[in-house]
Amino acid sequence: MSELPSVPMTLEGSSVLHQMFRFDWESWKKLSVQDQREIEAEAVELFQTWEKGYGEPARNQSAIYSLLGHKGDLLFIHFRDSFAELNRLELELAQTRLNGFLQPQHSYLSVVELGLYESSAKTYAALAEKGFTQGSAEWNAGVQEVAARQSNAMAQRLFPSIPPAKYLCFYPMDRRRGEARNWYTEAMTDRQRMMHQHGMIGRRYADSVRQIITGSIGFDDWEWGVDLFAEDPIVFKKLIYEMRFDEVSAIYALFGQFFIGVRLQADNLTSWLNGKLT
Amino acid sequence: MSELPSVPMTLEGSSVLHQMFRFDWESWKKLSVQDQREIEAEAVELFQTWEKGYGEPARNQSAIYSLLGHKGDLLFIHFRDSFAELNRLELELAQTRLNGFLQPQHSYLSVVELGLYESSAKTYAALAEKGFTQGSAEWNAGVQEVAARQSNAMAQRLFPSIPPAKYLCFYPMDRRRGEARNWYTEAMTDRQRMMHQHGMIGRRYADSVRQIITGSIGFDDWEWGVDLFAEDPIVFKKLIYEMRFDEVSAIYALFGQFFIGVRLQADNLTSWLNGKLT
Amino acid sequence: MSELPSVPMTLEGSSVLHQMFRFDWESWKKLSVQDQREIEAEAVELFQTWEKGYGEPARNQSAIYSLLGHKGDLLFIHFRDSFAELNRLELELAQTRLNGFLQPQHSYLSVVELGLYESSAKTYAALAEKGFTQGSAEWNAGVQEVAARQSNAMAQRLFPSIPPAKYLCFYPMDRRRGEARNWYTEAMTDRQRMMHQHGMIGRRYADSVRQIITGSIGFDDWEWGVDLFAEDPIVFKKLIYEMRFDEVSAIYALFGQFFIGVRLQADNLTSWLNGKLT
Amino acid sequence: MSELPSVPMTLEGSSVLHQMFRFDWESWKKLSVQDQREIEAEAVELFQTWEKGYGEPARNQSAIYSLLGHKGDLLFIHFRDSFAELNRLELELAQTRLNGFLQPQHSYLSVVELGLYESSAKTYAALAEKGFTQGSAEWNAGVQEVAARQSNAMAQRLFPSIPPAKYLCFYPMDRRRGEARNWYTEAMTDRQRMMHQHGMIGRRYADSVRQIITGSIGFDDWEWGVDLFAEDPIVFKKLIYEMRFDEVSAIYALFGQFFIGVRLQADNLTSWLNGKLT
Amino acid sequence: MSELPSVPMTLEGSSVLHQMFRFDWESWKKLSVQDQREIEAEAVELFQTWEKGYGEPARNQSAIYSLLGHKGDLLFIHFRDSFAELNRLELELAQTRLNGFLQPQHSYLSVVELGLYESSAKTYAALAEKGFTQGSAEWNAGVQEVAARQSNAMAQRLFPSIPPAKYLCFYPMDRRRGEARNWYTEAMTDRQRMMHQHGMIGRRYADSVRQIITGSIGFDDWEWGVDLFAEDPIVFKKLIYEMRFDEVSAIYALFGQFFIGVRLQADNLTSWLNGKLT
Repeated sequence: MSELPSVPMTLEGSSVLHQMFRFDWESWKKLSVQDQREIEAEAVELFQTWEKGYGEPARNQSAIYSLLGHKGDLLFIHFRDSFAELNRLELELAQTRLNGFLQPQHSYLSVVELGLYESSAKTYAALAEKGFTQGSAEWNAGVQEVAARQSNAMAQRLFPSIPPAKYLCFYPMDRRRGEARNWYTEAMTDRQRMMHQHGMIGRRYADSVRQIITGSIGFDDWEWGVDLFAEDPIVFKKLIYEMRFDEVSAIYALFGQFFIGVRLQADNLTSWLNGKLT
Repeated sequence: MSELPSVPMTLEGSSVLHQMFRFDWESWKKLSVQDQREIEAEAVELFQTWEKGYGEPARNQSAIYSLLGHKGDLLFIHFRDSFAELNRLELELAQTRLNGFLQPQHSYLSVVELGLYESSAKTYAALAEKGFTQGSAEWNAGVQEVAARQSNAMAQRLFPSIPPAKYLCFYPMDRRRGEARNWYTEAMTDRQRMMHQHGMIGRRYADSVRQIITGSIGFDDWEWGVDLFAEDPIVFKKLIYEMRFDEVSAIYALFGQFFIGVRLQADNLTSWLNGKLT
Repeated sequence: MSELPSVPMTLEGSSVLHQMFRFDWESWKKLSVQDQREIEAEAVELFQTWEKGYGEPARNQSAIYSLLGHKGDLLFIHFRDSFAELNRLELELAQTRLNGFLQPQHSYLSVVELGLYESSAKTYAALAEKGFTQGSAEWNAGVQEVAARQSNAMAQRLFPSIPPAKYLCFYPMDRRRGEARNWYTEAMTDRQRMMHQHGMIGRRYADSVRQIITGSIGFDDWEWGVDLFAEDPIVFKKLIYEMRFDEVSAIYALFGQFFIGVRLQADNLTSWLNGKLT
Repeated sequence: MSELPSVPMTLEGSSVLHQMFRFDWESWKKLSVQDQREIEAEAVELFQTWEKGYGEPARNQSAIYSLLGHKGDLLFIHFRDSFAELNRLELELAQTRLNGFLQPQHSYLSVVELGLYESSAKTYAALAEKGFTQGSAEWNAGVQEVAARQSNAMAQRLFPSIPPAKYLCFYPMDRRRGEARNWYTEAMTDRQRMMHQHGMIGRRYADSVRQIITGSIGFDDWEWGVDLFAEDPIVFKKLIYEMRFDEVSAIYALFGQFFIGVRLQADNLTSWLNGKLT
Repeated sequence: MSELPSVPMTLEGSSVLHQMFRFDWESWKKLSVQDQREIEAEAVELFQTWEKGYGEPARNQSAIYSLLGHKGDLLFIHFRDSFAELNRLELELAQTRLNGFLQPQHSYLSVVELGLYESSAKTYAALAEKGFTQGSAEWNAGVQEVAARQSNAMAQRLFPSIPPAKYLCFYPMDRRRGEARNWYTEAMTDRQRMMHQHGMIGRRYADSVRQIITGSIGFDDWEWGVDLFAEDPIVFKKLIYEMRFDEVSAIYALFGQFFIGVRLQADNLTSWLNGKLT
């Protein structure tokens, strides 16, 4: 029997854009109160619509976070149905008067991703057992069928609402491709085992942290983006510290910049623009 | 019999420049409608000509993409017959009034390249079999003859039209020259085998992704530039993720920044400048 | 008996933000003396309150340092009870007129952390001896109980006053996760032994250097931030140089940027703004 | 017999400064035609003198290149007799009115260098054979004598004219000092052999590429700078690609940024400033 | 007998700040001649005092260098008795009118350091021979006594005058802490041997190069700063190239940016500000 494929199936959902801006307080302060009120009203209205999204439970939402530190003052997350829609909202935001006070610092482009290590292993084994050759019409149909079924079953996780938690932690990451330790040359079964162990830690934190994984291979400069949502930010530290000792993170995880923000309802953007975190 | 050469033949075609710009929306908005119309007209006219290129199928084309994220707002690709022509169009673009709103963020200079691993292996073996010494007049003539023949046969791929697909993915890459794993010290036959396997994956995606490889050794800061064109950007992710597990990418590929854009016909630049992605 | 956990307990205390700014002297000099006095008064009043904090001994304090070199002119440290409070003070600072002269260069977000290597080892061993399974209710209760007791005992170190020393040295650091040497795959007992040896060096300097360790896994781009406080800055060099030869630092420590500042009482900010370091 | 020295002799010639600038087209366009003419005249006159240099064949020349891509618009190379002279011309250039439109992006400081691997090997062997001790007066005199003789013989290569070719390729490079592969710990004879093989490739391209190697150890951030001059830029790619497979480049070469420019005679600077590459 | 300490004694002297600035020629040229004269007079007077320092031979001096290349136009070195004094002069410089034309690009903070590898080895051996335990009162007293004696003997090297040479070369450096090659885990005797060999090369250049080593562990982003002073800058290259082949540099030295400047007497700052390097 020939070797099974090494590439696990993935499911893709919402297109996601993170935008990080500095806010130009000094120019803002120079405006008349009248101008400030108008700009606030325009921005709040736009974000109220975006915040709502559509459907039940809501999808295609946006959310605002007040960022800590010099990396930025405001972070916007946008979930949409396509990159074209994300680009459209970027252009729409650029036309607002608020845009004149937003200085782009960073961004991240990705799509919600569910990695199916366990399901892939089972599916590949089953198809091989049936005697199908990898890449044959039967094989591909079998894989497609499982992916479609899973996609339906997990639609809500693929096109999620934005969790309402008070704090956000966002960071991008890679799997290491070093000269001696290389995730992409590890056997599928080893990767599956490590991802399972990794997932078990996350599960123990499920009550206090919501997690959305997005894939960005081919879209942005890291392979994945991780969004964590929690009421108590200490949990971000506990979770990530504990994971740092599990095999897959200890050996294979490389991290980019970390961003921490406090959730800001669109309604409260006006307060924020007056210097108050409600 | 002495060892065969380790350097595969390559064919070179169009000179290619990628330009990435941020657009200065705030200065743009301050213009009178009259000024905006004039600037739009001048820019659209220029890009209409560039978009068309010449010949049948067209070559020496330019294309505009609306970029996602903070890395830039507009990306221009230009295919031309020489670096001097590319430099000429840079100067011409700089003279337009639109240039005052374009803030250069990044660029990439390269030439369309076709690597001839299989053909090189056969040619070198055949010439060696005839008893020619590497670097001898006969040897060089033999190599030249094959390169010229292939260049003719592949003229359309060497001087390509720009695929009309909705989405663009561009990224530069290197082959690793690590202390332990070094592409340039691998045997020619091993490289040929890995490149072949790599190509097979691409071939399976041929229906949904068009790919143009450009070489930039000696021209820019990475060794190659990759342009992918597709109607559905998820395919970029599927393709690159699958390739990441093949031997040549898993072990030897190093990647630069990724840029994702939505194609913008020159005719639609006016809409874009009014904040709409048509 | 199954293997003991590899993740040591940590205790978390104050939320901490470091802010580094350049000061725009040229714009400042252009102000009238009257304007300068008003801005100084507003800033001094704010920082006097922040400097004081609350309680006995005081916690939730801020402190100002005059920085050396081009990385910045002023560094503010803020200790607070939560990230939301830190974000609130960022917004409050942004509303002052002084903010117009502060150009953000860098920042660091973390929480005071006490690592309990020795206590963890003992606790885990004791719980295992009692026959409890890791992750069982009894096990977790046992761990929680120790953490709570230690947290109480060390409240003053977890929510510290800012030492009044003349000089500050701040730098972020990581534990190495290299392909050959990886802190996170070392055995708990080895890490405990190395941390103990490391701590012994610090203890010998305790008379001349006060040290506050903050953890930033999940919060900022390095794993820990180190603040050293001393009357004589040469001691920073002596201490860090000696530590560089101990096992944990020599092999596993990676360092970010170093910042050196001279303490500035809020009262003396006025002198500083007039070009004098009192 | 004791070991021979591991440091090859080098000869040094002209002091060389590369300057890369962006050109501020928008400010330039705002000038009156009268002002543009005056600034052009001043700049052209200065560069005509610098272009000429002195002597026969000319040395101490400067040359202008129109750069491709966002790294800069203009590159100036200056060959002079000392760093003080280079600094003098920097100050002179800064006084021109053109300087107001030149935004410094990059630069490179080095001296023309000829490495004497073969000659060193012979000389060291001959001196050792005579029984002289390394570092003795006789030894040093012997080395000096060879260096002086070679310096005379190669004066024209040490103080070269700037080749008139249409295209320039400039890049800096290092020899690797890795943990496993380290150029500086390789035996002199191995380095000599690799440099010889490397030189043979260059020699085969001598008809189509002129090469000037400058050394910058102690002067700038890489160890060497390479200037290639050719009528057809594809040759840069062919040459550097072929070299990438030779032992010394494959294993020991690390490259910085690549700059590609089109030669601009001082006389044609006026056209360029009017947006035309003649 | 227990192992001897691995940390060599170091002596510390003057506090040193390097400041690198670009000069804003375009704003400068816009000033009236009257304004220029006043600004020049103020700056020259300040630097004349700083240049002089105090004592015989002079210490606590400053010096000005005209920098080559885009990294900056002016470099100031300041030797003082403490970091507070350095910070004081930064503030004083910021109050001058010249400051409005100085754009900070880089800086380096360190203290003059003499490493006592040989003396440490002897002292540790002698103390051990006497039967003293490391860290005991007798041991510490013995070490202190030697350090104090050496400090006195080397006072002039610890608090040096600035050599009057025409050229300056400054660069920061680290000792490698790689996964396979790590300076800080090498045995003291091996480090001592390598440093001795390294010093012998320096000694052979003593006639043509003056060298001041400053330590910056705990103060700035590299471990050491090196200042070389010479009449002929080619000597910088010869010296550093030769050292690159000695064991300690070849294997353990990592280098930062290199800065090359031409000495400018305070008296000649006026000429420089008029575009002339006297």
